[in-house]
Amino acid sequence: MSDPKVVRGARTVLLLMCQDRPGIVARVSGFLFEQGANIESVDQHVDRDTGRFFQRIEFTMTDPSRSGLALAGAFEPVAEALGASVEFRDLDRVPRVAVLASKQNHCLVDLLYRARTGDLPAEIALVASNHPDHAEVCRFFEVPFHHVPIVAGDKASQEKQLVELIASHEVDLVVLARYMQILSDWFIDHYPNRIINIHHSLLPSFVGAQPYRQAYDRGVKLVGATAHYVTAELDQGPIIAQDVAPISHRDSLEEIVRKGKDIERLTLARAVRRHLEAKVIAYENRTVVFP
Amino acid sequence: MSDPKVVRGARTVLLLMCQDRPGIVARVSGFLFEQGANIESVDQHVDRDTGRFFQRIEFTMTDPSRSGLALAGAFEPVAEALGASVEFRDLDRVPRVAVLASKQNHCLVDLLYRARTGDLPAEIALVASNHPDHAEVCRFFEVPFHHVPIVAGDKASQEKQLVELIASHEVDLVVLARYMQILSDWFIDHYPNRIINIHHSLLPSFVGAQPYRQAYDRGVKLVGATAHYVTAELDQGPIIAQDVAPISHRDSLEEIVRKGKDIERLTLARAVRRHLEAKVIAYENRTVVFP
Amino acid sequence: MSDPKVVRGARTVLLLMCQDRPGIVARVSGFLFEQGANIESVDQHVDRDTGRFFQRIEFTMTDPSRSGLALAGAFEPVAEALGASVEFRDLDRVPRVAVLASKQNHCLVDLLYRARTGDLPAEIALVASNHPDHAEVCRFFEVPFHHVPIVAGDKASQEKQLVELIASHEVDLVVLARYMQILSDWFIDHYPNRIINIHHSLLPSFVGAQPYRQAYDRGVKLVGATAHYVTAELDQGPIIAQDVAPISHRDSLEEIVRKGKDIERLTLARAVRRHLEAKVIAYENRTVVFP
Amino acid sequence: MSDPKVVRGARTVLLLMCQDRPGIVARVSGFLFEQGANIESVDQHVDRDTGRFFQRIEFTMTDPSRSGLALAGAFEPVAEALGASVEFRDLDRVPRVAVLASKQNHCLVDLLYRARTGDLPAEIALVASNHPDHAEVCRFFEVPFHHVPIVAGDKASQEKQLVELIASHEVDLVVLARYMQILSDWFIDHYPNRIINIHHSLLPSFVGAQPYRQAYDRGVKLVGATAHYVTAELDQGPIIAQDVAPISHRDSLEEIVRKGKDIERLTLARAVRRHLEAKVIAYENRTVVFP
Repeated sequence: MSDPKVVRGARTVLLLMCQDRPGIVARVSGFLFEQGANIESVDQHVDRDTGRFFQRIEFTMTDPSRSGLALAGAFEPVAEALGASVEFRDLDRVPRVAVLASKQNHCLVDLLYRARTGDLPAEIALVASNHPDHAEVCRFFEVPFHHVPIVAGDKASQEKQLVELIASHEVDLVVLARYMQILSDWFIDHYPNRIINIHHSLLPSFVGAQPYRQAYDRGVKLVGATAHYVTAELDQGPIIAQDVAPISHRDSLEEIVRKGKDIERLTLARAVRRHLEAKVIAYENRTVVFP
Repeated sequence: MSDPKVVRGARTVLLLMCQDRPGIVARVSGFLFEQGANIESVDQHVDRDTGRFFQRIEFTMTDPSRSGLALAGAFEPVAEALGASVEFRDLDRVPRVAVLASKQNHCLVDLLYRARTGDLPAEIALVASNHPDHAEVCRFFEVPFHHVPIVAGDKASQEKQLVELIASHEVDLVVLARYMQILSDWFIDHYPNRIINIHHSLLPSFVGAQPYRQAYDRGVKLVGATAHYVTAELDQGPIIAQDVAPISHRDSLEEIVRKGKDIERLTLARAVRRHLEAKVIAYENRTVVFP
Repeated sequence: MSDPKVVRGARTVLLLMCQDRPGIVARVSGFLFEQGANIESVDQHVDRDTGRFFQRIEFTMTDPSRSGLALAGAFEPVAEALGASVEFRDLDRVPRVAVLASKQNHCLVDLLYRARTGDLPAEIALVASNHPDHAEVCRFFEVPFHHVPIVAGDKASQEKQLVELIASHEVDLVVLARYMQILSDWFIDHYPNRIINIHHSLLPSFVGAQPYRQAYDRGVKLVGATAHYVTAELDQGPIIAQDVAPISHRDSLEEIVRKGKDIERLTLARAVRRHLEAKVIAYENRTVVFP
Repeated sequence: MSDPKVVRGARTVLLLMCQDRPGIVARVSGFLFEQGANIESVDQHVDRDTGRFFQRIEFTMTDPSRSGLALAGAFEPVAEALGASVEFRDLDRVPRVAVLASKQNHCLVDLLYRARTGDLPAEIALVASNHPDHAEVCRFFEVPFHHVPIVAGDKASQEKQLVELIASHEVDLVVLARYMQILSDWFIDHYPNRIINIHHSLLPSFVGAQPYRQAYDRGVKLVGATAHYVTAELDQGPIIAQDVAPISHRDSLEEIVRKGKDIERLTLARAVRRHLEAKVIAYENRTVVFP
């Protein structure tokens, strides 16, 4: 006879943000218990400066035929009483990601590989680029590729095409995998805290173009990368992940670029994973990144 | 007029370990809410292999005249119902630490400095050594020093003296700061999961004596240190913290030792801090180390 | 008018190993100067334990029509006088690499991508596997793939096929990209210090099979990878590169494997690059890895 | 009978900087060989952007009664022919260091401890501070302490006192161990590339005051420190060493400061060691830091 296995229903995440006050944990966990939900993990954080409370609860339903998302309606009075903004996320639905890239493909190929092999819990729904270069690699990974060039400097109409493309693919997240165009506020406003960019420096060092050249010229001993949500202000959005690698006087600019690429790929993949696992809450210019 | 400050009562930690089952969070947080406790932070973990549930709750009392520790009695029925082993820890009482050292003093001095400057939330209650060397530095840091030599190979009576010394100073934790004597089971049994040792390798590599020599001979490219609870089996106790530094063929054995010392100091201090903040739960041969 | 560019002839590396004695640098650099070679970089090392001297000199010829390799003959008397073993390597000839893989492809794909994009100065001459899985990805990267199964447990004849394959492709280096078969001494003897393996632990921890499982069971807080030359003794060869990533009690075995894969890829690529750039000298059970 | 030991004469370092041209290595090593010097190590570097050549040669004299420094005169024609700037440094003379500190003492105590225990090859010749706080700890380490207050905002006369103090102690290097006063150009000009400062951020991020506060406000995920030579422009001097530690949303400003202190101590000590071992050459706004 085999062991009786615990059957786990769909995993659901509840993200909650409100002002801190006594009794939040008891109230939320009490609600979930009454509704037949099993808490798998709880993480929370209080920002002492602002008194803001953040919580991530991952739960399954005791009755696997019931959906965790269906609790959203019943939770409304609790959320209202707490003055909380709330999000329920179904962890077993594979999220859909749009990747924008320019000429370079190291981050793009890394994401495609990770999504394909299950390393990243995502489906790359489409790849779009202002350059035609990535058609072949996308075909190999069986992901739709769209060349959306900027014609005669008319960025506005290119962005309009991108927004329509992304809408038609029902995408949860937009990833800028070394997309070297500055996006308009109009574009960014479509995806609040839903665009992740990789910047090839340790922000706030070396904003703008050519951060590796700047790092080389300054003679720094560490080169880094920063994954962040895109906001209207360039390179100023909430930071999700950062990492570094040592460099020395021996490293030419080309060597720095090469070493930086490895850091970019790892840092971007880490940030995307955290977002897709519903482990990131952005507020003001900061993030809570649950472990 | 000054701002009305939120008065926080004494911070208390509740550590809890039991078999996982639905409703634990709701039950424990409900209890605390009813008792007038404000939850400051919750961390928990489930070991999927064993189904064991671990929780750390940090709370304050709404009425600052009440002690968090006083909830221990009222919690007993809850603990019993959950089959949980439970510990209440008063975070505002400064814990008392005994440090054992041999000839080298880099870890000892680091701990003395950190405790003195408040970097480490501890009072070094005493330092004991089988060598007489540390009297002067202990006098400077105003910490009692006891030279407890091993006379004529009679380790048993030296250990007896150590146990009596430690008992007379009402110590919460024993730290082996490069104490190079192997302790008997009899000694160790006095302090279950209450002795932290720093081993100068990345365990399980290079157990036993002269790990740096072994590392040098093997030609490894990273040198490390491991802080762990001491158990009867040498260098086999639950690991709390590990760290590494890069080395190269240029590093002589002396250079490796020098680089290693920095790693030892940081790793030991990190492990001791985590323990004193009641963030470590050891079980079987593992630890949960809450962030 | 454009700037007059300095024309650099082919870059050549001279690797030299002998007993240390006064005057080696003067003698070797004097020889190169007389022969019309410009020294681009010099790195050297003396092992104080054994008195052994190691040197790597990278040079170009003032007359770019002359080959640096052609100096090898004229250097013989110098080498003889010094009792030195010597190797001349043409850095502008792209070295040819054979990659052996089993089922997993994360290291294989990483190497293919790096070689294709010029990140790694190599041509992957062939990929061989005891599993048929990698045909498609090799076709995409336009690299010959050979499925060389082990038939009826007859490893000897499979190894014979591998040796013939490798010979027919004129390969400089064999890389085991998570090739999970133990190779015979017969195979290994064909490629002394010419086979690089990636082991998924921080050697000497966790030799043998399932190092991640061992790491998980031991409760370590760092997971690592080791790239080393393959010798007759399993997992005991000279170490070229090691790296680690932090893990915690939250990491399931699956998470550890996932985090480990990133470390494996980076560590293997780093070791292969160093070897191909003629920056590694192995002796006894150690390596000199020039920066 | 004991082994015949190789007697090594005083170790001397020759640092050399000139425009790159063929034959430098041969010429310099030839000179040393003829003079009866044994080269212990050679490191060199060519900056491809500027064509500048840098070399560090460590040597001993075959005749231990002769001084390596005595070669300086005979080397002058060689240096002139190469257009090289040259420095001979006696590695066996313990260099003398002045440490300036303000209120905080973590870097100061770390340097005192390292110098006392031989971890750092230096004698702390004096400690000076604009605060009186460090008298006791300096007495313990038997190092002269001078309280040099800034009276009535008259920084100029305080700096004059510091310069006289430093002169009277025949100091090789001035270390700013979290000295929080901005030094005048007049002061700095006394010690070109002879003042090392530790800045508590990863420059060029967060120049000026309160870098930890800035890092906290920006929500970065790594906190760092930078050791650099002090030049007239604040926080802009050539960088010698940098290091980082991970932080998260859980870290209060106090926690960031605490974690940062460990990075500051290690980074400053590393930079000071490299300087004292004659392994750093600064030029323009950069450094060559030999391994």
